[in-house]
Amino acid sequence: MTEFELIRRYFDRRPSRRADLGIGDDCALLRPASQDPMAGRATPRASADRLRNAGFAVSTDMLVAGRHFFEDVAPDALGHKALAVNLSDLAAMGARPRAFTLALALPAVDEAWLDAFARGMFALADRYDCELIGGDTTRGPLNVCVTVFGDCDVETALRRDRAEPGDDVWVSGPLGLAAYAVRERLAGRRLPDDHPAVLALERPQPRVELGLLLRHWASSAIDISDGLIGDLGHVADRSRVGIDVEWARMPVPEALWDLPAPDVRALVLGGGDDYELAFTSASVNRGAIEALRAQSGLPLARVGTVRSGSGVTILDAKLQVLDDAIRAFDHFA
Amino acid sequence: MTEFELIRRYFDRRPSRRADLGIGDDCALLRPASQDPMAGRATPRASADRLRNAGFAVSTDMLVAGRHFFEDVAPDALGHKALAVNLSDLAAMGARPRAFTLALALPAVDEAWLDAFARGMFALADRYDCELIGGDTTRGPLNVCVTVFGDCDVETALRRDRAEPGDDVWVSGPLGLAAYAVRERLAGRRLPDDHPAVLALERPQPRVELGLLLRHWASSAIDISDGLIGDLGHVADRSRVGIDVEWARMPVPEALWDLPAPDVRALVLGGGDDYELAFTSASVNRGAIEALRAQSGLPLARVGTVRSGSGVTILDAKLQVLDDAIRAFDHFA
Repeated sequence: MTEFELIRRYFDRRPSRRADLGIGDDCALLRPASQDPMAGRATPRASADRLRNAGFAVSTDMLVAGRHFFEDVAPDALGHKALAVNLSDLAAMGARPRAFTLALALPAVDEAWLDAFARGMFALADRYDCELIGGDTTRGPLNVCVTVFGDCDVETALRRDRAEPGDDVWVSGPLGLAAYAVRERLAGRRLPDDHPAVLALERPQPRVELGLLLRHWASSAIDISDGLIGDLGHVADRSRVGIDVEWARMPVPEALWDLPAPDVRALVLGGGDDYELAFTSASVNRGAIEALRAQSGLPLARVGTVRSGSGVTILDAKLQVLDDAIRAFDHFA
Repeated sequence: MTEFELIRRYFDRRPSRRADLGIGDDCALLRPASQDPMAGRATPRASADRLRNAGFAVSTDMLVAGRHFFEDVAPDALGHKALAVNLSDLAAMGARPRAFTLALALPAVDEAWLDAFARGMFALADRYDCELIGGDTTRGPLNVCVTVFGDCDVETALRRDRAEPGDDVWVSGPLGLAAYAVRERLAGRRLPDDHPAVLALERPQPRVELGLLLRHWASSAIDISDGLIGDLGHVADRSRVGIDVEWARMPVPEALWDLPAPDVRALVLGGGDDYELAFTSASVNRGAIEALRAQSGLPLARVGTVRSGSGVTILDAKLQVLDDAIRAFDHFA
């Protein structure tokens, strides 16, 4: 059973009745119930709607030692990453970071470790004015669970299920570095701490500003946590479309240029943990998205097209199907 | 270092700037930012205030195998309890359950286990119309982290920091059963599955309805998770008051009547995991609270008084100080 089959079988009882968006996207979308059924009735309509649409994007991610990070990871890097992967989910919804909770199981109280962990976490939190508002600490095998809250308009938040045939497909930067760092480490080769692949793995930079800018332009968005093929597969499934990715258009990180071609494709298309954004946008917006390159400082790349049909297909330079059988990462595979 | 010292030293950066209430209560209180700075301006004031005060109470609890539950606990009981302890935090704020997220680390995919876990969790969720809206599943040592969202008016939510000298102190029912079940099990004595102590430990009933009723009457509230002494100590600290508890007024569960007196006091005053509510209320409300007994179906008991000063004191039948040196449960003790 894959992770997604497990969720579908035991936990997914869609459609949501209590939220604007439930299971199946980067975040859920939730608005407070008015405490007064009459509230807003006499309010000018446009203004009242904006107030009524104000809600939260909510996401939770659990990081387990030996699974999501190496046991000897620097604690400040772990503090950073535990929050970063959650902020990346907010970015994928175009939500503005507001607050988070932290549940932490620790095998023992190690003051130097805790000090560094908190330092790494708060450095990133402060950059986005995202406040720690609650949590839980307990003894147990090392486990970090962050739940994050981002402000958004629940009607205009970015989602996975609104890509349209004809849309362009974009990624926010080169992919595959984090997966390369993991591969080298598992093969017993230690990259220097400041190698771009190690930085990608241990200090991912959530694309929060880009997500906010994309609210006006993207038809759908997702963060690339399990690998481009798998994550675009979610967009295709939820939007009931197919997606073609042109391999020749994919930005490949310089650190991977000397590897054998099939390895490069496996890392770039199937490697997770990069936390770039993939998004779709009507082709009429192409100029606007290109202008966002300068505004965001990110090397946005147009890498494919949404089509009718289903699934994600990789095309070579002659637009023939490349058949590498690359799969997304699965925790229960 | 205790759990609370750890939080204070590394994670607590109060006062909160981004939430109505941050670290240090059963829940944080959070309102969405309006997506429009002009929103509500032309709104009739009373109505607009109620809309603007609509927010969420948010709490997160992490349950670790061998720490919060015995490894061989029935999975449906674990599913129930993981949500129940979070709903209890909502109850302590007078918030109405709305939705939750679930992060789950599993050593392996065991379909019968997952089926029972989900059944126990959803049975309780459905009772309160509290919907699972997102989560994360991964492989790892068994760990269950639930984050819960309750609707509330952030201005009138119940908190720990508003007890006043002269207020009565109440508990929602007899205490100590769950701690007794743990004690017996650790001593190698197995109570029957339907023993009230086992039910208290494995199927705690969050006092959600009572919390909602108390919004109009209680000056402060807390759920009793770490033991009455410790939890009332939090109310005393946060409200800058002292609390006297009269031992003779404490309801003692029938299952504990035959134990030695010091054991009974240790279990009732220091045992955690019962998830009853403790609350304070102006003595002028005494009749109203007594009327809530019938309405809630709970044996509400008036057990003490808020005074000026600090700390929690236990008094015997002659109102002399009982000195049992009972401490609250501490995960890092």
